[in-house]
Amino acid sequence: MKRIILWTLLLLTAGWVGTYAEDGSRLWLRMDAVSTPAKVTGVKGTALTELQTYWQGGPVVLKRQKGLKADAYTIKSQGGKIVITAGGDAGLLYGAYHLLRLQQSGQATSVPVGSAVGNLDITETPFYDLRILNHWDNPNGTVERGFAGKSIFLNPTPERMKMYARANASIGINGTVLNNVNAKPEALSTESLQKAKGIADQLRPYGIRVYLAINFASPMRLGGLKTADPLDAEVVKWWRDKVNEIYRLIPDFGGFLVKANSEGEPGPQDFQRSHADGANMLADVLKPHNGIVMWRAFVYAPQSPDRANQAYLEFMPLDGQFRDNVIIQIKNGPVDFQPREPYSPLFTAMQKTPMMVEFQITQEYLGAANHLVYLAPMWREFFSFVKPASLRAMAGVANIGDDTNWCGHHFAQSNWYAFGRLAWNPNLTSEEIAKEWLSMTFGQDERLKMKDESAAANYQLSIINSPLVKLMLDSREACVSYMMPLGIHHIFAGTHHYGPEPWYAPRGVRADWTPPYYHKADSIGLGFDRTLSGSANVKQYPDELCRLYNDINTCPENLLAWFHHVPWDHKMKSGRTFWDELCHKYDDGLRQARHFLAVWDTMQPYVDQQRFEEVQRKLRIQARDAEWWRDACLLYFQTFSKRPIPQDMDHPVHNLDEMMKFRIPIGMYENPECGYTK
Amino acid sequence: MKRIILWTLLLLTAGWVGTYAEDGSRLWLRMDAVSTPAKVTGVKGTALTELQTYWQGGPVVLKRQKGLKADAYTIKSQGGKIVITAGGDAGLLYGAYHLLRLQQSGQATSVPVGSAVGNLDITETPFYDLRILNHWDNPNGTVERGFAGKSIFLNPTPERMKMYARANASIGINGTVLNNVNAKPEALSTESLQKAKGIADQLRPYGIRVYLAINFASPMRLGGLKTADPLDAEVVKWWRDKVNEIYRLIPDFGGFLVKANSEGEPGPQDFQRSHADGANMLADVLKPHNGIVMWRAFVYAPQSPDRANQAYLEFMPLDGQFRDNVIIQIKNGPVDFQPREPYSPLFTAMQKTPMMVEFQITQEYLGAANHLVYLAPMWREFFSFVKPASLRAMAGVANIGDDTNWCGHHFAQSNWYAFGRLAWNPNLTSEEIAKEWLSMTFGQDERLKMKDESAAANYQLSIINSPLVKLMLDSREACVSYMMPLGIHHIFAGTHHYGPEPWYAPRGVRADWTPPYYHKADSIGLGFDRTLSGSANVKQYPDELCRLYNDINTCPENLLAWFHHVPWDHKMKSGRTFWDELCHKYDDGLRQARHFLAVWDTMQPYVDQQRFEEVQRKLRIQARDAEWWRDACLLYFQTFSKRPIPQDMDHPVHNLDEMMKFRIPIGMYENPECGYTK
Repeated sequence: MKRIILWTLLLLTAGWVGTYAEDGSRLWLRMDAVSTPAKVTGVKGTALTELQTYWQGGPVVLKRQKGLKADAYTIKSQGGKIVITAGGDAGLLYGAYHLLRLQQSGQATSVPVGSAVGNLDITETPFYDLRILNHWDNPNGTVERGFAGKSIFLNPTPERMKMYARANASIGINGTVLNNVNAKPEALSTESLQKAKGIADQLRPYGIRVYLAINFASPMRLGGLKTADPLDAEVVKWWRDKVNEIYRLIPDFGGFLVKANSEGEPGPQDFQRSHADGANMLADVLKPHNGIVMWRAFVYAPQSPDRANQAYLEFMPLDGQFRDNVIIQIKNGPVDFQPREPYSPLFTAMQKTPMMVEFQITQEYLGAANHLVYLAPMWREFFSFVKPASLRAMAGVANIGDDTNWCGHHFAQSNWYAFGRLAWNPNLTSEEIAKEWLSMTFGQDERLKMKDESAAANYQLSIINSPLVKLMLDSREACVSYMMPLGIHHIFAGTHHYGPEPWYAPRGVRADWTPPYYHKADSIGLGFDRTLSGSANVKQYPDELCRLYNDINTCPENLLAWFHHVPWDHKMKSGRTFWDELCHKYDDGLRQARHFLAVWDTMQPYVDQQRFEEVQRKLRIQARDAEWWRDACLLYFQTFSKRPIPQDMDHPVHNLDEMMKFRIPIGMYENPECGYTK
Repeated sequence: MKRIILWTLLLLTAGWVGTYAEDGSRLWLRMDAVSTPAKVTGVKGTALTELQTYWQGGPVVLKRQKGLKADAYTIKSQGGKIVITAGGDAGLLYGAYHLLRLQQSGQATSVPVGSAVGNLDITETPFYDLRILNHWDNPNGTVERGFAGKSIFLNPTPERMKMYARANASIGINGTVLNNVNAKPEALSTESLQKAKGIADQLRPYGIRVYLAINFASPMRLGGLKTADPLDAEVVKWWRDKVNEIYRLIPDFGGFLVKANSEGEPGPQDFQRSHADGANMLADVLKPHNGIVMWRAFVYAPQSPDRANQAYLEFMPLDGQFRDNVIIQIKNGPVDFQPREPYSPLFTAMQKTPMMVEFQITQEYLGAANHLVYLAPMWREFFSFVKPASLRAMAGVANIGDDTNWCGHHFAQSNWYAFGRLAWNPNLTSEEIAKEWLSMTFGQDERLKMKDESAAANYQLSIINSPLVKLMLDSREACVSYMMPLGIHHIFAGTHHYGPEPWYAPRGVRADWTPPYYHKADSIGLGFDRTLSGSANVKQYPDELCRLYNDINTCPENLLAWFHHVPWDHKMKSGRTFWDELCHKYDDGLRQARHFLAVWDTMQPYVDQQRFEEVQRKLRIQARDAEWWRDACLLYFQTFSKRPIPQDMDHPVHNLDEMMKFRIPIGMYENPECGYTK
């Protein structure tokens, strides 16, 4: 309450300030070039150029030091200068961006705007060596589950590529897979490789390597061989030749990302070989070039009684059989990037195989580019179960397209940012990252606009202490609440995964692509029985967790319907029945979404008009969508529960029959203009 | 809270009861014919037939008694019989319906279902002799501001006419104007009169007289005369002949309703004669037949600086000049049936002229047949300012059409019912009437279904003590809140008057047909200055009220923007500014509309499935519309107030530019399917 009053006061004091237009194209790097370059000396390269262009403070020296990791760095105040020391160019560049971040966000009181050097003593070493974006970009320019326009690699202009590179480097991302995991064989054609070389050349100065997703059947479909059997000598030769061709063009090429025997993609199993056979063959041909294979564990069969079990069942027997330059890339959860999943049990089960986590930055299942959902809390939740040190690397499916603001939603930029920061240091808190991003993304121009220093300092205080921080931190849980609370999962619309379609089950569609497979609603209750008397998925978790999850009375309520077929009358910790709790969760989520709008509206005096209005329009869509979700899910599940919606909450305002007839005319390559309209 | 718990318990006990379909066609007369007719003796006629058909109790005697008013009656228990005594057939019929109402609603514990006679001692005399419905039905079957289908008089079947007559008689309505006040001259053609005779013949047995609205230029446009000057001898002769023709066909014809010199209709002013000249001429030709003239005071000129002043200015000089069979029919408020208006000052000003009030039962400005708005509280509010005894009669613009359920919305039937009951006795409370209507309309079949007597008694208790009573009583104020709180008025869409269009002001449309004429929003504030320093409309009220309304600090807040141009920062009694209060009022209204839905949903076990679902769908539209109203009005007015919407309420979820582009493709003869869809 106090905070509300304070904000209301601030708001009234500030009045109705019109500010100049912003389009989000500069992301969090909203620095203007200085008129007089700072005195920056030492190692030549991108770090030096960036500092000369943007650094407003005193002299900086760039030093290289042997023995340090190439991308680790220190920043120290020494004799009136700032000294950045690193093992290599990448480290110097990261150090430079660190310094610019301090300047831009006004975080370090010792480095006030335009002032002399403070008392800096910073040492940074990246937690993971590989911090990789996965672009699901297709050759025709569409982006699978992309909500921000077409592929940035379709017609990559130097300006746009430079901004992309700077943005990534500024948060430590050092690798990018240029194409969709559902890869066409043509991804390895000479023409495609030439194009990849062009991009690689533009990214190299920023410490970013390129990778390619490959189609396992390429030797047949591109090379004209009769087989793609990984143990076939001709196949191996084809791959070796292809890899050599790649490295001639791109000497620092990173390696391959492979989706094999998954959702119709070809793989070694088509030739009665194992995932290990396939991955190792590729690893062997890449090895001489220091390339790696990222082999996805995202596999599941249509006839599986529990899709969540399958990756474990297929990969555990292979544990220890992979080459050391193979990394198994595992989605954070056992199903598919749902608003909430338990962690994939492979992470704690596999002991002898390098692993990396695949997060999804693009909001395929979290409201696309219409909903404000800050994902750091979701990823931090994952790391509370899976020790960061048990992984070799971190990958994130990019949310980047050729929209002016890159991500479709201004706040979606925060997820790109947070992914990079967590890949650098998974121990950063969601709040730290949100404050960094907010102050850089919304703070800069306002601060400059407020001429005198004390006003600027107050302003910085207000942005990072603003209700926006809490809004961001609450946003993912709110989304879970209004989409699929209490462990419910995958009740999305059939194709676009945007709105609710818990009833979606057309004839002929494989069962595990339909919501009823997951929610299993009936007159008894709701949820997928994965206990020992069900699919026994709980058994894939360590004993302690297995016991916890297996018992409906100890299973965390936020995963209840994930692990249990929960009776409608099951008594929850709140004292409510499961049905009543479900209703309240949906309504709570909606009320939060509405509250976000009220919070954002109070920020109007602090945000430029363009971004204010664009975000406001998105938040309005989100609030309307949250209502759609609540109504569709509750009314549909009510046909099973036959229980009334509690009186002490708002009741559905839409009609089930009408929602069931509604279609958004988009596929998997677009962001919907808005949600349900009736 | 206690009540909520009680209801939840009742609901859980009752479970999810499926009940048989109901379509609302029987209105509040949901009685089934008895298998063995009761012993009813005495005066033959409709009263006797109705009791023989529906009365389940002991013997009834019908007696006529001289000296009593024709439609007054007594009901008394005498020696094991019930004796109904009345001055005429109408009184007997009203007595019979009174008895049936007691049976049906289970109100009188002394008359339990099917039991012997209790201890009745009832005396009823109608407060007004004339209790009249005005149908705004056109010859082509459309109904102006009709939201329940086409005119019931287009193809009047005997069954439908009988039900219409029974329904009216059961609540004491004894007159009906068959056609629109915007009358065509053809309304008086011989063909039309034949048709009116047919209807009159069907209504007569139920004590209902027919009236006709006439076009003042009929002598010219129907009769071929060169003038319609009321002082022209030929014109008078034409009217005398026409009236004689009517009475030959319909000997108990009631008289004429006249809209003259209003909204383009012809009138005596076209011939330099006064309203009195026109009305008196018609009164004189009707007088020999005991016919009356109802002359509407609804007049206003396009160039008037304040439309609210005009009826007073035109009619006050004529006070005392009208014949005694002329009644001036005045709308309850000085403008036009708004959700809230002050009473029309003519009512307290005219001292020497018979007056009647015109209420609007059809919800032209209250959500049409989509919103549940129980109007008795609005009419009772009127009577708290205007003494019922100062009026001669009561008229209501009907909400009746050929929809199966007569009124489009099942709850709209309650307004037809309440109008009749208040015309009979304006001192009945809104709550009494709501309970009567509810128990008759929703109680009957449920009670019969619950076999044993004690369950039936409990059920009756539950219906009339249910939250539905409060819902109905609150509904009008909720509508005011979400549509136009604090005295705002007439900010409706241009043609259909359904949704918000406070910005509607197309070039060429007369100013007083556009919302800005009424709301006058600007950077200072909102509202129409009708104080002594404004249009001086306050001066038309009695001194005490004039002083009260004239001072912004004493003016009732629910009429503030009616009488004042209220500064945005004006301090309200709540301590809020006017702007903040406005925002909260709109949001409160929305929250109430949503709450109604929750209340209704709890009634599911007690209501048949068809009506439950039909009302639920309407309440959902209403909740969505309330949101549309809030968003459209607040965002539009915000463009003037330049003030933020308070943080402690939900913020708009729709965009002003999109709402401003939105059109519902209907005119003034239809009920919209639903409101804003985006």
